[in-house]
Amino acid sequence: MTSRRTPFANELSPASQTGWRAHWFHIIFGHEDAAGRRFDVLLIIAILGSIAVAVFDSVAHAHAQYGKFFYTLEWVFTVAFTLEYVMRILVVDRPWRYIRSFFGVVDVLAVLPTWISLIAAGSQYLLVVRALRILRIFRILKLTRYVGEADLLWSTLIRARRKVLVFFSAILTLVLIFGALMYLIEGPEDGFTSIPTSMYWAIVTMTTVGFGDITPKTVLGKMLTSLIILIGYSIIAVPTGIFTAELAAGMRSKRKYRPCTQCGQADHEGDARYCRVCGMELPAENH
Amino acid sequence: MTSRRTPFANELSPASQTGWRAHWFHIIFGHEDAAGRRFDVLLIIAILGSIAVAVFDSVAHAHAQYGKFFYTLEWVFTVAFTLEYVMRILVVDRPWRYIRSFFGVVDVLAVLPTWISLIAAGSQYLLVVRALRILRIFRILKLTRYVGEADLLWSTLIRARRKVLVFFSAILTLVLIFGALMYLIEGPEDGFTSIPTSMYWAIVTMTTVGFGDITPKTVLGKMLTSLIILIGYSIIAVPTGIFTAELAAGMRSKRKYRPCTQCGQADHEGDARYCRVCGMELPAENH
Amino acid sequence: MTSRRTPFANELSPASQTGWRAHWFHIIFGHEDAAGRRFDVLLIIAILGSIAVAVFDSVAHAHAQYGKFFYTLEWVFTVAFTLEYVMRILVVDRPWRYIRSFFGVVDVLAVLPTWISLIAAGSQYLLVVRALRILRIFRILKLTRYVGEADLLWSTLIRARRKVLVFFSAILTLVLIFGALMYLIEGPEDGFTSIPTSMYWAIVTMTTVGFGDITPKTVLGKMLTSLIILIGYSIIAVPTGIFTAELAAGMRSKRKYRPCTQCGQADHEGDARYCRVCGMELPAENH
Amino acid sequence: MTSRRTPFANELSPASQTGWRAHWFHIIFGHEDAAGRRFDVLLIIAILGSIAVAVFDSVAHAHAQYGKFFYTLEWVFTVAFTLEYVMRILVVDRPWRYIRSFFGVVDVLAVLPTWISLIAAGSQYLLVVRALRILRIFRILKLTRYVGEADLLWSTLIRARRKVLVFFSAILTLVLIFGALMYLIEGPEDGFTSIPTSMYWAIVTMTTVGFGDITPKTVLGKMLTSLIILIGYSIIAVPTGIFTAELAAGMRSKRKYRPCTQCGQADHEGDARYCRVCGMELPAENH
Repeated sequence: MTSRRTPFANELSPASQTGWRAHWFHIIFGHEDAAGRRFDVLLIIAILGSIAVAVFDSVAHAHAQYGKFFYTLEWVFTVAFTLEYVMRILVVDRPWRYIRSFFGVVDVLAVLPTWISLIAAGSQYLLVVRALRILRIFRILKLTRYVGEADLLWSTLIRARRKVLVFFSAILTLVLIFGALMYLIEGPEDGFTSIPTSMYWAIVTMTTVGFGDITPKTVLGKMLTSLIILIGYSIIAVPTGIFTAELAAGMRSKRKYRPCTQCGQADHEGDARYCRVCGMELPAENH
Repeated sequence: MTSRRTPFANELSPASQTGWRAHWFHIIFGHEDAAGRRFDVLLIIAILGSIAVAVFDSVAHAHAQYGKFFYTLEWVFTVAFTLEYVMRILVVDRPWRYIRSFFGVVDVLAVLPTWISLIAAGSQYLLVVRALRILRIFRILKLTRYVGEADLLWSTLIRARRKVLVFFSAILTLVLIFGALMYLIEGPEDGFTSIPTSMYWAIVTMTTVGFGDITPKTVLGKMLTSLIILIGYSIIAVPTGIFTAELAAGMRSKRKYRPCTQCGQADHEGDARYCRVCGMELPAENH
Repeated sequence: MTSRRTPFANELSPASQTGWRAHWFHIIFGHEDAAGRRFDVLLIIAILGSIAVAVFDSVAHAHAQYGKFFYTLEWVFTVAFTLEYVMRILVVDRPWRYIRSFFGVVDVLAVLPTWISLIAAGSQYLLVVRALRILRIFRILKLTRYVGEADLLWSTLIRARRKVLVFFSAILTLVLIFGALMYLIEGPEDGFTSIPTSMYWAIVTMTTVGFGDITPKTVLGKMLTSLIILIGYSIIAVPTGIFTAELAAGMRSKRKYRPCTQCGQADHEGDARYCRVCGMELPAENH
Repeated sequence: MTSRRTPFANELSPASQTGWRAHWFHIIFGHEDAAGRRFDVLLIIAILGSIAVAVFDSVAHAHAQYGKFFYTLEWVFTVAFTLEYVMRILVVDRPWRYIRSFFGVVDVLAVLPTWISLIAAGSQYLLVVRALRILRIFRILKLTRYVGEADLLWSTLIRARRKVLVFFSAILTLVLIFGALMYLIEGPEDGFTSIPTSMYWAIVTMTTVGFGDITPKTVLGKMLTSLIILIGYSIIAVPTGIFTAELAAGMRSKRKYRPCTQCGQADHEGDARYCRVCGMELPAENH
């Protein structure tokens, strides 16, 4: 066992075994011991703090008043995240694998915009990319049991992917056809300036969002709008309604617990007089 | 038994045993006998009445016409609630425990704003707090069997709290990312004046509310809007759709059509071998 | 049997036995034979026709062009419905019972507005009551098997009435509290002119309708709006999500069909090795 | 076997057996071999391409810049689709049956508008019909396993058609009555210019779309609007809530915590008497 701590073993899997790299690997990538958890909490605070700075700096009067303070904070977070990124590269055994991983890319995207803003003019647009820092949080959340729930939801979605594809194909076909029809009926003077705009309107309408920036003015347009709205509403309302009705029907012919005297099968339908498994007459109900 | 009604026993648990305090304790806190129920009904009427006064007094022309009448009514209710509060303190054994309880705080919040308005200028804002009087009603409702239903819903929510947290984390992450992107794409001239405003817009849009006070104007903005709308719509529509499909698949296989040769009953469970109505062996399946 | 057709028996239950009253009773109230069904179809056409006249007469340019034609049609329908109403009174055994029944009231409401418009000025408002004629259709639909489905939905709602009441109480409490808060925060200058108006806005917002005629302008107002929107959206989205997750979890540990060699119980959990009914070892799976 | 390739056999079922017609029949209608699949992929690309041209050509500035290019592309696609249509007629055994089939009509509708635009002025409206080309894609999708999922959803809908009809009847009755009432209460000055317009508004409102182009201004109108909104919202929210509550109640009772004295497995079904893992008799329930 101790032989694994020799330099040779260290060369095989250095970061995860010993030395300062191993020490920092445990702090940065580990989540089990106190040091690892302290680092995680610190990282979450830094991520949320840096996002808060980016969000509030976009508010004009906050920028006017606290602009310099936000700027300083932004650089503190950027330098800290850059140091963290360098450390991550240094302590892992296969740096390239980490750099090209999903979280490796997110980590570099989290600091790049700020550095680029130093050398390139007009790169203020890039600053929005900092919002992606929120994704860094999922690295830590990945280890909690919350991810089990998310996984469950995700795997359900994956298993039902064909149903989901059929659903989106149906939605988009309806959007294309209704969008084209509304463009024809209403025309540019009512805001339906092109088929893409009409399709955008059809999505807004069918999903019951209804901004109201574009609305039908003609009688035929309003009839078609009523139709697409009812389709969109039914997609949500009809399944739940059917479902509740089925539930109600199911509860009506409830099952009864009456153990068969011969085979013990106890779960029978309400109107059963003979055991469906062995054919024995069921005992009379005593209620 | 009678010894418990002696002054000594009375000192142990006075309110719940005898004397005027016990009498009023039963009326105010009790709900079983006629007096207690009469008090409950009176209290519900007073609460709803005082809320109605607060609500209608906020309407400008109603205030102009009935302002004085509302003012008088408000003081009648406030004095009554204050008396009730004092009585509650007097009749309970442990007044401090009641005062610091949830309903104790609600009871004092129900009368405080009106009293403060006497001595402090500009306290009209506090009057809105009177709307919290509605919470007082739940003290009485707590005892009805309706609360069992609410409890059931609540406990389901508690058991599913991790799923609910995952849901809200996902929603808020999407809101942050889409909000930042829309702020970048549309910019202040189209109403997306800051990232917080954009995030507010993203919530309004994703949940299919769609006020229409801020709407995308650029092509890219409309495409991103369509995407966020479809995500928000799918969160509701897809699970119900998947569910209905599963139900349909389940119903198809669960029951089988196999008419009994003796009694003709044709609707049997999938695993039935004997007719549950007449006990006859069912014909073998031929598929 | 023939004795029941004597005048004496006729006096006991005349309409349902013989004579012109019996004949018309069968036509008007019956639905089984050809004459009864012809009358039903005619009545449905007349009802839908009269509603179509009322609906299209409200369109200004249609009224200008076809006003006289609509007026004539309206009187044709009114006279026909009045004759039908008189006939119904004449042919039933207990006229008062019919007159005071739900459909009796609907029948008289269907013709009254037109007659009143003859003698009273300003009674044009009453004409809208004619839309209630649609309810007359349910008299006939009541006999179809569609009503079984509606009954099922209705009885489910009745059985769940306490849950529904809890739901509406929760919604209205939230609407009152958020309405009062928004009135305080936003104030009349942003459209929140009174608490009732604020509550109307809260209903429009929480249910994801979002007209956009009143929208929050302050930062705090937008935050509160985001909160109420997320609550309203979650009320729909969270249950379906939880449900789908439960379904997914359920499908994972699916049940298997493995009949017990001793008792025949065939429905076992996926990981079962012994019959849960009789304790016998289950046969090995062969897939 | 070879005799079936003689001219005589060819006359019986020519296209599907031999010759150039059989060859092209396999390519155009077949989907099994490489040539058939290549044709399918090519067709999908052509359909999506031609729709993209129609969609983007409707955008004013895209039309100004790429109008000629779009025009050329449109003719390329139209000629290709026309050739394909002629080929389909030539290679099938019963051309009339194909021409009158659903996809035969869609195929001709896909090319007709462009040809008509050559000879008739003002036929630009017909160009929108080209959006129906999207339906041509379903011919190919019909053969994939995605259609099984769509079939399942469709058959569920068909089985529940009476529930769906009851649902739409209820919606439309509510829309008629609320539409007429709002027309009476609000009147033309607030945008409720006629009962059909009011009904359009009622659909927009009840389904939680809420464009906001027409909104109630009177107090009574806002109260009625709140009512119709709550009905529309409840249609979606109540069933899911009831359902989740039922699920919660079901989960509480279905399984029981009774640890097996032998193996410790504690999670058993409600009717279990023997441990399903080790076969040991479970301890008796003590409640």
